[in-house]
Amino acid sequence: MFPATTYTARRKQLATDVQSGLIFLPGNAEAPMNYAGNTYPFRQDSNFRYFAGHNIPDLALTIDAASGASRLWGDDISLNHVVWMGEQPSVAELAARIGAERGGSLAELSTVLKTYAKEVKFLPPYRADRKTYLKEHLATLFPTGMGENAGANKGLIRAVINQRSIKSSEELEQMSIAVRTSMDMHAAAKTHAAPGQLEHEVAGLIEGMAIAGGGRLAYAAIVTKNGQILHNHYHGNTLQKGDLLLIDAGAEATSGYAGDITRTFAIGQPLTTKQEEIYRIVDRAKRESIAAARPGVKNRTLHDNAGRTIFSGLKDLGLTKGNPDEAVAAGAHALFMPHGLGHMIGLDVHDMEDLGEDLVGYDENTRRSTQFGTSSLRLGRELEKGFAITVEPGIYFIPALIDQWKADKICADFINFDKLKAYYDFGGIRLEDDIAITASGSRLL
Amino acid sequence: MFPATTYTARRKQLATDVQSGLIFLPGNAEAPMNYAGNTYPFRQDSNFRYFAGHNIPDLALTIDAASGASRLWGDDISLNHVVWMGEQPSVAELAARIGAERGGSLAELSTVLKTYAKEVKFLPPYRADRKTYLKEHLATLFPTGMGENAGANKGLIRAVINQRSIKSSEELEQMSIAVRTSMDMHAAAKTHAAPGQLEHEVAGLIEGMAIAGGGRLAYAAIVTKNGQILHNHYHGNTLQKGDLLLIDAGAEATSGYAGDITRTFAIGQPLTTKQEEIYRIVDRAKRESIAAARPGVKNRTLHDNAGRTIFSGLKDLGLTKGNPDEAVAAGAHALFMPHGLGHMIGLDVHDMEDLGEDLVGYDENTRRSTQFGTSSLRLGRELEKGFAITVEPGIYFIPALIDQWKADKICADFINFDKLKAYYDFGGIRLEDDIAITASGSRLL
Repeated sequence: MFPATTYTARRKQLATDVQSGLIFLPGNAEAPMNYAGNTYPFRQDSNFRYFAGHNIPDLALTIDAASGASRLWGDDISLNHVVWMGEQPSVAELAARIGAERGGSLAELSTVLKTYAKEVKFLPPYRADRKTYLKEHLATLFPTGMGENAGANKGLIRAVINQRSIKSSEELEQMSIAVRTSMDMHAAAKTHAAPGQLEHEVAGLIEGMAIAGGGRLAYAAIVTKNGQILHNHYHGNTLQKGDLLLIDAGAEATSGYAGDITRTFAIGQPLTTKQEEIYRIVDRAKRESIAAARPGVKNRTLHDNAGRTIFSGLKDLGLTKGNPDEAVAAGAHALFMPHGLGHMIGLDVHDMEDLGEDLVGYDENTRRSTQFGTSSLRLGRELEKGFAITVEPGIYFIPALIDQWKADKICADFINFDKLKAYYDFGGIRLEDDIAITASGSRLL
Repeated sequence: MFPATTYTARRKQLATDVQSGLIFLPGNAEAPMNYAGNTYPFRQDSNFRYFAGHNIPDLALTIDAASGASRLWGDDISLNHVVWMGEQPSVAELAARIGAERGGSLAELSTVLKTYAKEVKFLPPYRADRKTYLKEHLATLFPTGMGENAGANKGLIRAVINQRSIKSSEELEQMSIAVRTSMDMHAAAKTHAAPGQLEHEVAGLIEGMAIAGGGRLAYAAIVTKNGQILHNHYHGNTLQKGDLLLIDAGAEATSGYAGDITRTFAIGQPLTTKQEEIYRIVDRAKRESIAAARPGVKNRTLHDNAGRTIFSGLKDLGLTKGNPDEAVAAGAHALFMPHGLGHMIGLDVHDMEDLGEDLVGYDENTRRSTQFGTSSLRLGRELEKGFAITVEPGIYFIPALIDQWKADKICADFINFDKLKAYYDFGGIRLEDDIAITASGSRLL
């Protein structure tokens, strides 16, 4: 946790921005796995953690926007619970540690919320238990049901995004810790992975290291010889000599901040010439993107530039053809990189995704593309000093997608479909780093 | 997965037992962690897995109890999803693998459920998203709201408990795999744990091994030098030479079956005489319990016997006094072992806890005790051939509890409170094995 002054200052800023109403930031509860008593590892809500610090279930924060008064709500534990859970600090102590007042029990909070229903401002819920809670307590705010972001306060969402988008030096320091653990995980995986192993042996090594570091994984690791399947969480394949192994894995520091790193290497031998040709294109796209990242540059521009680098590199190999600018405008690069170049990172690996991807990554000057591939870019808007983002270009050969484009003659002027046959079993390569935007450029975290 | 015939036979038995209505067994969905798209590792619902096998989210099984017709419901994925998720078997293929018919899409299931609402029979939901789903689809079954087990069908609960309580040889084999991985985890922890390490370094080693084995942990590991805190998931302490380290951790096999093993050892040196004296009592209680476990014996009897062994052992050390039978009847042993001797284990570490602890662990011949400590015993009833259970006696010195009993003169005739002062910093020792009840006794899994 940061010092109390950090949280006090954040809440003061939020109250100033929101101006009126009761800001309600519930912390997360435990999440049942296979029965109520067997829960997943506790993960605090990131907004609660940003403004209230504590990584403990069943707390809630309220901020009276007009007066700025902050209250922490929760139940103190009984002696019976002490036997099972050990001595725990009282809610009053927890409140003092973040410069807030003790509010009262959760039952009392319940009454307060119901009383002030129309003045309560909250963020979009993403867990079912929270949706149910909000619906029960604030029914009047949901006249048309609980659709996407229904009832959530837009002004509050904006204010939170504005604050959380700009990382302080103490936040960047925590992210560097997460990235360092993540890099250690990747280094160990590369040393350890060998022919004959199963993917989940490598996955276990990685996840164990994240936990040994005092946190956990920031997201489910991708550890696959089928890198062309973008969100592949199957880890049952046996690694063979020469297989490309794509690992997308990041640790979450004890403080909750995420790392998000991807590496791709060959099992038991150096990259073959064919693999290295593709690797170098991806690596070039990554290095160029990082070199070009600075305040005032749109991340959408970096994405398009990376697309051009990828298209041109593949053209050098004879896999694509035609004018690179026209090809990228037509979206031809997306056959090989059907995802975005990167996204914000912070307390969440896709930072603030619960608040709405477009509100976080786009604004009135930069609208999301509707083109296949680029439409998946989470962050398009101008970079600002203090942003922390991922840079993660990739090249994949996805047989089902290639077959479809070929059959439907999509971007047929730019793709040498016949040449791609030799790459149907190639897999995919992605390389990803995390950077902070500085006053004049960027730096690796 | 087991062969299709296993699931067909299980469903046939269930339909026979339940006789009428539409049995509705929804599989689990993904569970959001810090936003909707960042989910916890998927954990299938154990009842769904028992009757439908598949470890895939967003499926549902229905069984027409009268006709026995089984249908698997789910949505096939689109090409766009193939890019992200890879080729997936169709729902029709998944249905065939478990000897069921394809039902239809989830939207179609939704309509069917609403139409047949009053004839739909389901089990108690434990996840909030499932509660919401049931409430929306089967509102007529919840005239008085969604309280504990509201709306769930008692006959179905009984029938499922009856089947799942008796483990087949193929199930016991899977549990042995889970126990073997769990034993490897404990062996590695004992080899690896050393003075200067943090608890979470050992926790990472253990959890990584569970994942490397192809499954995950069956429950959040306890890795603590404060074993007297029974459900202690804080792993931030530094291990020092001579500290007792209590590790309660079990792997879940790829098939979903759980192991649940506890070991306690000293860091960097053998147990001290004082530690060994306590260890031997716990070990004796464990060995005696396993030796006495057989069909027809009540687990409550084993629990009471273990309490007597613990009380008598501590009496030999001068920490307790008086007649052991009277002491156990008064509940004096619970000052040292405030939990139960064990519970059923299977697809859940506390097997079928979602169906109701008392329905699983007690019956008309064995009612749950209301006495502190013994009231926490999850399994009291007569053991039967095919039961799989844990045996986990422990002795803990819990200062807050000792102080309370002393102040309130609880069991003052049986406890030498003054002698306990020398044990305030002792911690706790628990030893736990998993056994299967055989025709004439039991065997270690």
